[in-house]
Amino acid sequence: MAKKAKRGPEETAPELELTGRDVDTMDRLQTLARRVIESAEKHRDPHLDVPSRSLSNAHFNRKKRFIEMGDRTNRRELFNLNQARMYMQTMLAGSGCSRLLRQGKSTSIRGLYYMLKHTIEGTKEETFDDQAESDAVIEDLEVLAGALREELHLYAQTRGSLVGTITFEDSGDTIDASRMGSGGYSIPSIVEPEIIKFKKCDAKFILHVEKDTVWQRFNQDKFWQKHKCILTHGSGQPPRGVRRLLYRMHNELKLPLYCLLDNDPWGYYIYSVLKQGSINLAFESQRMAIPAARYLGLRSIDFDRCELKPNVTIKLNDQDRKRAQQIAKYPWFADKKPWQAEIKKMMDNGFKLEVESLISKDISYVTEVYVPDRLRQGDFLD
Amino acid sequence: MAKKAKRGPEETAPELELTGRDVDTMDRLQTLARRVIESAEKHRDPHLDVPSRSLSNAHFNRKKRFIEMGDRTNRRELFNLNQARMYMQTMLAGSGCSRLLRQGKSTSIRGLYYMLKHTIEGTKEETFDDQAESDAVIEDLEVLAGALREELHLYAQTRGSLVGTITFEDSGDTIDASRMGSGGYSIPSIVEPEIIKFKKCDAKFILHVEKDTVWQRFNQDKFWQKHKCILTHGSGQPPRGVRRLLYRMHNELKLPLYCLLDNDPWGYYIYSVLKQGSINLAFESQRMAIPAARYLGLRSIDFDRCELKPNVTIKLNDQDRKRAQQIAKYPWFADKKPWQAEIKKMMDNGFKLEVESLISKDISYVTEVYVPDRLRQGDFLD
Repeated sequence: MAKKAKRGPEETAPELELTGRDVDTMDRLQTLARRVIESAEKHRDPHLDVPSRSLSNAHFNRKKRFIEMGDRTNRRELFNLNQARMYMQTMLAGSGCSRLLRQGKSTSIRGLYYMLKHTIEGTKEETFDDQAESDAVIEDLEVLAGALREELHLYAQTRGSLVGTITFEDSGDTIDASRMGSGGYSIPSIVEPEIIKFKKCDAKFILHVEKDTVWQRFNQDKFWQKHKCILTHGSGQPPRGVRRLLYRMHNELKLPLYCLLDNDPWGYYIYSVLKQGSINLAFESQRMAIPAARYLGLRSIDFDRCELKPNVTIKLNDQDRKRAQQIAKYPWFADKKPWQAEIKKMMDNGFKLEVESLISKDISYVTEVYVPDRLRQGDFLD
Repeated sequence: MAKKAKRGPEETAPELELTGRDVDTMDRLQTLARRVIESAEKHRDPHLDVPSRSLSNAHFNRKKRFIEMGDRTNRRELFNLNQARMYMQTMLAGSGCSRLLRQGKSTSIRGLYYMLKHTIEGTKEETFDDQAESDAVIEDLEVLAGALREELHLYAQTRGSLVGTITFEDSGDTIDASRMGSGGYSIPSIVEPEIIKFKKCDAKFILHVEKDTVWQRFNQDKFWQKHKCILTHGSGQPPRGVRRLLYRMHNELKLPLYCLLDNDPWGYYIYSVLKQGSINLAFESQRMAIPAARYLGLRSIDFDRCELKPNVTIKLNDQDRKRAQQIAKYPWFADKKPWQAEIKKMMDNGFKLEVESLISKDISYVTEVYVPDRLRQGDFLD
């Protein structure tokens, strides 16, 4: 396999010279492969030590302020009837990704599943029975190789747009995000420095809103022009590409990130993932989480503060109350008094508030009053 | 109300000079309002004749080749206890839209709900109890005023991107869709000629693919450059903005539209809506349906034709079989032998095929072999 890694027999497509991060990613994949050879040469059983992705191996690092993966690993052996299948699947996924790197192409995790699915010669055994199997193995491969799946040339769904006072290059094309009309620029799934290169940025901050319909209001009112900022949305829980781009803009361009989300447990959760990372994919937090993100609103105090009418509120249901209690106990919210007050106040209110409820004041209240007031007052939750 | 239509007391935002289509839309809204005054002056009970949006009032026009709304109307009277509430809701929605037009702003149907929701003075009566009520009234208003909801300044969700050899203006910004990087241009919800103006088009056709992940493959392989075309996706069932933009490009730029969808009942249905319109919103077909659209694939014959392996197929379930039988009976498929054969073959196969299954041949088989072959051979379903 170590020899094959340079040229596999399976592909006919021309191979490219690897560049940038791909060289490093390929090296990590080849290291995995080389270990098999080394074990064989030493007459030892090949194995992989896969970092454990269980909840108990994820913890909140209070210093770094994001969710981190612990040190626990599980051994996966080739010559173990219970583990052989998954061992081989892991190596197969690694070989698939190295093929993608060498071809300079990428695909979805569904695409990789189809690419690798086959009946093993001379048997009736399938490499993968369903996509759930290959998805799990891809997550293993990410932590094994220490590479985000985007670096393994795997893309996710895209949903999310961007406009604002920033110019960057995307795959060689210059994108002036201040001239993107009403539609905006679709944020791609893979936004690594090889693809997206920042050129010129006049923005002073990033405003990330939850929904595309709210984003449209901010874009129509040219909020980003008036306030010199970058305006993004992620159609609800932002996909990986949006999170990673926010991370890069925040860290490389030193832009504060403000989040405008609904005043409900789902909005709190979106904030939590943007800020601290997700528990399920703790490995990725270090390259996606933005601990300095700020929660600008909506807040539980907004019903009184903005003098809203009761008929724009939405009653909390049992599910909401349960989720709110869970979220209040997250370690990164548990010791923050303002967050405890925020969540308690929502429970006491007995209702949630969508960003759109501000339209009952005026269609542009959110862009002309609400957000500018919060920014001027420096009034947000951490 | 007729007098108020020019200047409502509710808004403080500056009013704009109406331009283009807005003049016409406002006129249609004012006509509705004027009828109330006229009735009152003649001491008659005000009423609206709302075209019936029931299924039985939608039919397939074989000459125009799209789903059309019939002539049946339902009378809605102000002085009728059963109808007064809905009558007033309809007029309220009309007044809300006229306010949007005069402010030169637009909002989502959720936004309009929040904008219009209030407790009627001196009563405990709410104008709308929930959004379902205002959504239904908006659909009534569209047919009453003979205006698409986009013309009433109401936007829908956006999901869908575009790249290709076309340059257009969006709200004054020039968008060169051949220089949009890996992300592409986010197709907005409102794409009427006042917002999107076509400038230069070198494209020979439009390729619309179902999913964003497939779109990414075509964009990465620069398919649109090689084949001089426009490449779009709609993240599944395309939203209104995507359908309307495809309609405009097809009709104004005389570009054939080819659809690359999954070989399953859902793919057939997406094609059906793009081509003939949707039964629920028959009124909009005349401005959205593209009867000359072509179904390029995937086809039920592709398992054999492309020599796919059984392990990339997905077994049909009961729901699939039921949907397929329904779709086979749609009047626009019922008398087309190739479509009957297509659907029957899928049932006989007993499985469906996703576009991604072609990756099992080669990651770029779909962009380099499958679609180019079909285009060269002129091989598609009508």
